[in-house]
Amino acid sequence: MIETIAFDADDTLWHNEVLFSEAEQLFHEILADYADAETVRGKMREIEHRNVRLFGYGVKGFTLSLVETAIELTDGRIDAAGIHRIIGIGKSMLSAPVLLIDGVRQTLDALHGRYELLVITKGDLKHQQEKLKASALGRYFSRVEILAEKDPESYQDIVIRHGITPERFMMIGNSVKSDVLPVLSIGGHAVHIPYHTLSYLEHVEETEISTPRFHLLERITDLPALLERLSEENGNP
Amino acid sequence: MIETIAFDADDTLWHNEVLFSEAEQLFHEILADYADAETVRGKMREIEHRNVRLFGYGVKGFTLSLVETAIELTDGRIDAAGIHRIIGIGKSMLSAPVLLIDGVRQTLDALHGRYELLVITKGDLKHQQEKLKASALGRYFSRVEILAEKDPESYQDIVIRHGITPERFMMIGNSVKSDVLPVLSIGGHAVHIPYHTLSYLEHVEETEISTPRFHLLERITDLPALLERLSEENGNP
Repeated sequence: MIETIAFDADDTLWHNEVLFSEAEQLFHEILADYADAETVRGKMREIEHRNVRLFGYGVKGFTLSLVETAIELTDGRIDAAGIHRIIGIGKSMLSAPVLLIDGVRQTLDALHGRYELLVITKGDLKHQQEKLKASALGRYFSRVEILAEKDPESYQDIVIRHGITPERFMMIGNSVKSDVLPVLSIGGHAVHIPYHTLSYLEHVEETEISTPRFHLLERITDLPALLERLSEENGNP
Repeated sequence: MIETIAFDADDTLWHNEVLFSEAEQLFHEILADYADAETVRGKMREIEHRNVRLFGYGVKGFTLSLVETAIELTDGRIDAAGIHRIIGIGKSMLSAPVLLIDGVRQTLDALHGRYELLVITKGDLKHQQEKLKASALGRYFSRVEILAEKDPESYQDIVIRHGITPERFMMIGNSVKSDVLPVLSIGGHAVHIPYHTLSYLEHVEETEISTPRFHLLERITDLPALLERLSEENGNP
């Protein structure tokens, strides 16, 4: 029944949000003389939210937003050394090693050859390509799609382009907003595997999802068993 | 003989480098109290060149490099207001209107339906998609490929993926480095249409290109006549 399985990358195949948390921690330290952590966090989110329309997702836009936050929050009192440190945070994030999430490789090994496997991710094109290369997972995937936004239109474009029947397509990811809702809306299957922390840009209102095409798993290693079960329910051997 | 024609976007379909020149002008004004234009330009290129490996092409990385240049060039004396103005330059570039190069629409009108037309560009994914949308040229193209780097491997990947025979593929662009040399190297045709200014990141050593698969045109409107001539030389009606 399922023929094509697409994986989100950040916080699904490898750890990512932890880099943003660490960056936020360093950012708080830089601004510690000017504002408490709560104020810094609030201003940061306000500015990031305002800028995402222009900058999109990814480290470069995030870094520019941090610089802007620091300037606004300190009424221009932050010095150049502080701003240089913020740019250094961004650079460290861009060159951070890629750490796979537990069980990713064994899961891909189990599925490879039985399903067509894709990556569908969003963010900075160059950075995502480099992370995929560093992950050494490339050989499992027939195609890597890097999107500016994960909305129903962009998923629709992918299934059309690859000749995929939505009912035979399954998306795996940690974001209900980006990996689950848009895929369900075009008739595909979606598996939500929560990561312990989620970018506030991915937050959605608590939604009741009641379709048999939605599945919640605790870890990626539970995926082969889910596929087995779905296959048996559909009467396939 | 030629079946598929791919166009570079920045400075081939629409004006782009002029935005970087204007940005550089504003940047010089911000730093006028600290260094002369020549020193600013030299430092800026040094830092941009150092960062492109990490940031890639596009406005966000360029803006981060400007901020870093300003800090290094002033030994940290630039104030937050100056840095805020630099970030403002980047934001203006990201939201600048898209101005088509003369004759683009009439050329695409002449070719559309007779050739498969693609866009192959590099830079920030989101920004390039938005510019294409703002250009209202989308309907001419069967596919838009946005790359992190235009090298022989990425062109090879595209021709394989689209089932294109390189001998029947022609790339049109303003950069010898990105649009001509890698395409010739995989056996395709390349048309160089110089733009009056070229990013120094695109500069290559003067090279002698001696293959009948290379063509130099003054303007995009000369393209249909070139294709006509090539077709006649190949004995097609």
